[in-house]
Amino acid sequence: MSGDKTAIEEGAELLLDFGKLRKAAACGQALVPAVAQDVDSGEVLIIGYANRMALEHALKNGVAAFWSTSRNELWVKGATSGDFLDIVEIRVNCEQTSLLYRVKLRGRGSCHTRDRDGVPRLGCFYRRIEKGKLVFVPDPREASDRCPGSDGGARS
Amino acid sequence: MSGDKTAIEEGAELLLDFGKLRKAAACGQALVPAVAQDVDSGEVLIIGYANRMALEHALKNGVAAFWSTSRNELWVKGATSGDFLDIVEIRVNCEQTSLLYRVKLRGRGSCHTRDRDGVPRLGCFYRRIEKGKLVFVPDPREASDRCPGSDGGARS
Repeated sequence: MSGDKTAIEEGAELLLDFGKLRKAAACGQALVPAVAQDVDSGEVLIIGYANRMALEHALKNGVAAFWSTSRNELWVKGATSGDFLDIVEIRVNCEQTSLLYRVKLRGRGSCHTRDRDGVPRLGCFYRRIEKGKLVFVPDPREASDRCPGSDGGARS
Repeated sequence: MSGDKTAIEEGAELLLDFGKLRKAAACGQALVPAVAQDVDSGEVLIIGYANRMALEHALKNGVAAFWSTSRNELWVKGATSGDFLDIVEIRVNCEQTSLLYRVKLRGRGSCHTRDRDGVPRLGCFYRRIEKGKLVFVPDPREASDRCPGSDGGARS
């Protein structure tokens, strides 16, 4: 993993890439944002993009599918890792400009990053902004084992 | 409301605008997708976009703010309607290419559309795709009054 990638994915520095949307749109596909949400925990897992092919794949095969704007190809979540996201339902917003995949995890997690135990993180939103820095939030699967009011803070 | 707008927002026809991302990116701002999620119900309320100004507004003022890619201006949710979304925390994804606003509703709802009682809908994802058509899903605030197994179908 390159130093940059480690800093972005595992660091405490806010390094938001505001160029993302422009780059995504430049991949040449007609896309809408597509968000995957775990119906069990309510956790927002992934914010990705979908073209018609990805939506049709998701509808036909019952697993969350996106368009990878970096590789510029269909990205069926779990096709490589086995950690598929089974579709419970697909929702559309008021203006019909975005998609919400409501899913159940078939595997261990949905993020390509791993926690300190080497397990794929449940979702991609494992850090929150606090005083301009990033702070890790506990995996809701861990958090549910804790007593209310106990340490809900950083996990590393 | 124009016929088109009614069909898109209140209809059963799937009329997804896959041109959205391209149009959003063409507004000239450096943007990332920004999703607002209700921390109480877990409901995904809004999928929008944020530039640095919107994020800074949200951090500074504690209310969800987006960049309106159609009006090309800062869009502070609730500034017109009074239905602000108070920020509980802001999360960042693994690759630092999107934002998750975890919020509490100060007002009645977050969608600009209204239900049959004239009340702003809780969120924008009030329809699901079913056999190629859109079916209304109950507002979770209504659903919680219902017995499990009772009619969870269309609300109109």
